[in-house]
Amino acid sequence: MSFKLTILGSNSAVPLKNRNPSSQLLNVNERFFLIDCGENTQVQLRKNGLSFQRIHHVFISHLHGDHYYGLIGLINSMHLLGRKKELHIYAHEPLKEIINLQLHAASIDLSFPLFFHTLSYESESILYQDDVITVSNIILDHTIKCSGFIFTEKKYKRKIDKSKIEKYGIHHDHYVSLMNGENYSFEGVIIANEKLTKKPKDFHSYAFCSDTIFLPHLAEKLKKVDVLYHETTFANGLESRASETGHSTTAQAAKIAKLSKMKLLITGHYSRRYIDLNILLDETKEIFSNSMLSYSGMSIDFNTIYQRNNI
Amino acid sequence: MSFKLTILGSNSAVPLKNRNPSSQLLNVNERFFLIDCGENTQVQLRKNGLSFQRIHHVFISHLHGDHYYGLIGLINSMHLLGRKKELHIYAHEPLKEIINLQLHAASIDLSFPLFFHTLSYESESILYQDDVITVSNIILDHTIKCSGFIFTEKKYKRKIDKSKIEKYGIHHDHYVSLMNGENYSFEGVIIANEKLTKKPKDFHSYAFCSDTIFLPHLAEKLKKVDVLYHETTFANGLESRASETGHSTTAQAAKIAKLSKMKLLITGHYSRRYIDLNILLDETKEIFSNSMLSYSGMSIDFNTIYQRNNI
Repeated sequence: MSFKLTILGSNSAVPLKNRNPSSQLLNVNERFFLIDCGENTQVQLRKNGLSFQRIHHVFISHLHGDHYYGLIGLINSMHLLGRKKELHIYAHEPLKEIINLQLHAASIDLSFPLFFHTLSYESESILYQDDVITVSNIILDHTIKCSGFIFTEKKYKRKIDKSKIEKYGIHHDHYVSLMNGENYSFEGVIIANEKLTKKPKDFHSYAFCSDTIFLPHLAEKLKKVDVLYHETTFANGLESRASETGHSTTAQAAKIAKLSKMKLLITGHYSRRYIDLNILLDETKEIFSNSMLSYSGMSIDFNTIYQRNNI
Repeated sequence: MSFKLTILGSNSAVPLKNRNPSSQLLNVNERFFLIDCGENTQVQLRKNGLSFQRIHHVFISHLHGDHYYGLIGLINSMHLLGRKKELHIYAHEPLKEIINLQLHAASIDLSFPLFFHTLSYESESILYQDDVITVSNIILDHTIKCSGFIFTEKKYKRKIDKSKIEKYGIHHDHYVSLMNGENYSFEGVIIANEKLTKKPKDFHSYAFCSDTIFLPHLAEKLKKVDVLYHETTFANGLESRASETGHSTTAQAAKIAKLSKMKLLITGHYSRRYIDLNILLDETKEIFSNSMLSYSGMSIDFNTIYQRNNI
């Protein structure tokens, strides 16, 4: 089962020549989730060989331009290229009004159904789920309403070990309970589940947290997450500036990753004041060593980047 | 006096990896006019070393996304970088509402005054003028309200020839009338203007016409224009498709250039179906030889690209 993240942009505020604003594409078993959609995201998708017609769900963290100005262009291109499949957008108000006003100004009657789902800023709950994934929101604290997102693969069932099943002559009526981890028990015969099944595939969980001030209580909410994208807009020493503008520093992001026992921290949403982003990475690593920078075109395959040990 | 056009994008509809949507910057004696503002225009300005804080006037032809989706991002960046100077936008409704709704959603109180000027679709008149330039609208015929723009330098005054002035002992009270082309006449002495003044600098005129169907009557309106940007969305043979979608073919654009006795035709707004744009250029040149393709980053200095003979 694929679980792959491609960074399309990870800069803050003002787009630069080589640093695009916020956007990421998460591929979970060929389900494509777009997270934020800063200006020129559609071209970043093209540059990375990613078909935007395969995206069915778009999650917009908040309505600052560096997180959504590319969405109307993406929708427009989907339409011009004859899309028929539904598109679902999860965002705060008034994004629906913004998009519809622009479609109306161009006399566009979309070629596909477009659904808006308004994000709650009161409660955290499941926004979307299917047979392989659950997506939930997290309430962040920025200068305007802002949400993080957690993408969690559903836990895989144990796999039937056919050779053992044959050896013990187990009837297929017992397969479901065995796959759910129960021991075999029939007419007084008990066989431990581990003797009849194999360990299931690893499952992954990813959290996107941008933009936000330092929120220590996030650690508790993220404790079941493996990989965290957390903004590091500013370097250490700019805690006041970070707080005033609703952002975090490198050390603050690293503390969240450490407290929540993350396997990997991906940093992002860099201020344009930093030409060499390694300054930010070095600071992050001082507190949480398994940290990495993000940049446009970077791709992370969760199946190979680390091994889970907790199943 | 500089008169320089930089193409920031000249593709139609869907942005491609190496072909950006419609946008151009015209520099007339360090007055910077932005014409259209497709997605990612601000980055194209950066890539071409053009300061967007020096732009004071933005002309948006119409409200299809490939002509204005980059405007909100440009305005947002101007604000984030602390702009103080006024910005004037000339566009059809409801662009003001679209921009203001997005600023409101982000709780942005702009750092600079922003003025909207609604384009008329009933009459053609002067939109802006100062001591060196006049900008007027042209009514085009597209699938929605669409305007072209004519940028005309004001005719330069003749230059006083100091050596001749001294030779004839002309008092400076006569300078203004001499610069206006009048003969010297004082106490019965008459001296032909040409003996006391030099030919003024060339003045230029540029017209932007995109998007539009073939409009033969444009030729009359453009007869005082030297350089024309006219869309050639489609190749010959696709006249019906062009007409249905409100566009022109190569031959149609070339005919306008020929009828209006243009000095140079710059083509643009190419359909993504054309990988090799030289196909379009070859067709255009069959009717109007002094034609050229436009592409992102192309710069045309009107002072060197041709010599006017009609002053």
